[in-house]
Amino acid sequence: MDDDPTPTETSATDRDAACFEAGIKFGSLYHQFAGTPVSPASADSLARAMEDAIENQPACERVDVEMREDRLREAIAGSSADYVEFTGRFADVEIAIEHEGIAVLARMALEDGYPRMRIDSVREEGTPVDDEGSG
Amino acid sequence: MDDDPTPTETSATDRDAACFEAGIKFGSLYHQFAGTPVSPASADSLARAMEDAIENQPACERVDVEMREDRLREAIAGSSADYVEFTGRFADVEIAIEHEGIAVLARMALEDGYPRMRIDSVREEGTPVDDEGSG
Amino acid sequence: MDDDPTPTETSATDRDAACFEAGIKFGSLYHQFAGTPVSPASADSLARAMEDAIENQPACERVDVEMREDRLREAIAGSSADYVEFTGRFADVEIAIEHEGIAVLARMALEDGYPRMRIDSVREEGTPVDDEGSG
Amino acid sequence: MDDDPTPTETSATDRDAACFEAGIKFGSLYHQFAGTPVSPASADSLARAMEDAIENQPACERVDVEMREDRLREAIAGSSADYVEFTGRFADVEIAIEHEGIAVLARMALEDGYPRMRIDSVREEGTPVDDEGSG
Repeated sequence: MDDDPTPTETSATDRDAACFEAGIKFGSLYHQFAGTPVSPASADSLARAMEDAIENQPACERVDVEMREDRLREAIAGSSADYVEFTGRFADVEIAIEHEGIAVLARMALEDGYPRMRIDSVREEGTPVDDEGSG
Repeated sequence: MDDDPTPTETSATDRDAACFEAGIKFGSLYHQFAGTPVSPASADSLARAMEDAIENQPACERVDVEMREDRLREAIAGSSADYVEFTGRFADVEIAIEHEGIAVLARMALEDGYPRMRIDSVREEGTPVDDEGSG
Repeated sequence: MDDDPTPTETSATDRDAACFEAGIKFGSLYHQFAGTPVSPASADSLARAMEDAIENQPACERVDVEMREDRLREAIAGSSADYVEFTGRFADVEIAIEHEGIAVLARMALEDGYPRMRIDSVREEGTPVDDEGSG
Repeated sequence: MDDDPTPTETSATDRDAACFEAGIKFGSLYHQFAGTPVSPASADSLARAMEDAIENQPACERVDVEMREDRLREAIAGSSADYVEFTGRFADVEIAIEHEGIAVLARMALEDGYPRMRIDSVREEGTPVDDEGSG
């Protein structure tokens, strides 16, 4: 019925699960490494460890961590120490997930001073389910 | 074309984003608190802190952490210490997300000895909000 | 010899070990919980969990975590989110260690914008060691 | 008096502070990285990141992390996943501290199934302690 006010509750699709997996990787990466002492000199080894660690997780095809050394240097310049604690503002991150033929690409980057995580694209492999071009 | 082998790439829908948010919360909860010293006596305060901390995150409606004291006691009995480090096997977790009218319920529980995170259900709020009064 | 330039290398005394244990607790507390989402509303449950978790560790008599809600509110006011990630500036911490009759009291508090950890006092119990043979 | 039951309370010496600093580094290293997904293939980058991160901290001269790939392989063989979460049993760690002329060497290694952290030696620079009264 057109005026049915009842919400539709469904099980998770493969696409839902792929997006969920992408989220897990971002939450894991962020909260595993938040607080790690980091300086321009140690930024590279931390980035590699973050990539390699999270790539171990299921459905994770690729993790790219680009340390923002500009922001590291700026934060250290305003501090009494010569390192800072890692947090999201110090890296741009891209993660590629592949789950049951669904590829999800997601990113973390600073927006309005807050490290925002977003899905960039979702790609469903093979012939599209509803054959969109055939209609 | 009917035989188009090209994958379909799309932007994220609200439903994708809601599932992504659910994953972020699980990854955050897990990797923020993995390694925390925990015993049967301290399990409750850790569970409350996990719930309250993750409920701060955007789109997070509710977090329920049920510590598995049976497994804590068992692990401690086989150890030379009187506490263990928190890891996923020591809690069952349920998280409720609400994002742009999409409600996602997800859980973590042990499956085959591995703490599996899964989406339980996705509920799309039926008729859009601004139609509700029209029925 | 009076002019002997050779450093003296010794094994650890009980006092050394007690100070070492105090340091372990501070490093553990700080790096386990750094990055935890925290707001004025969730600060208390996080403080209790930090205390209870670290008190599980060997030789740890007492942990007091006083959340600095003034600094939490100030940081949130300058942010686009309604919570922040926990870091040392948001708590004053006192830890009491007891190891082999040596009591160490140590604190963390902000100094020049940096959360400094320091030993406050070391108390050696009862009759001093070098009196033991004096019957 | 020989029978004085009053405990002796003192401020921290440089030696106390050096031992405290050594403890901070071990607690930090352990609880920052506990829970990190690790496999034999990613063990090296994690070890390097742990070393470089902790070497940023004050008074920290050197950190050596030797991943115990034998134990990683053994743990993975008994698991349904192809990685494990990092915990103390998977690494032998040595940390060298230098604070106000006091050098502390400390280690973490498995003892009775528990990753034990201990001070190995304390070296006081300059005139040795036991020569001080001889001048």
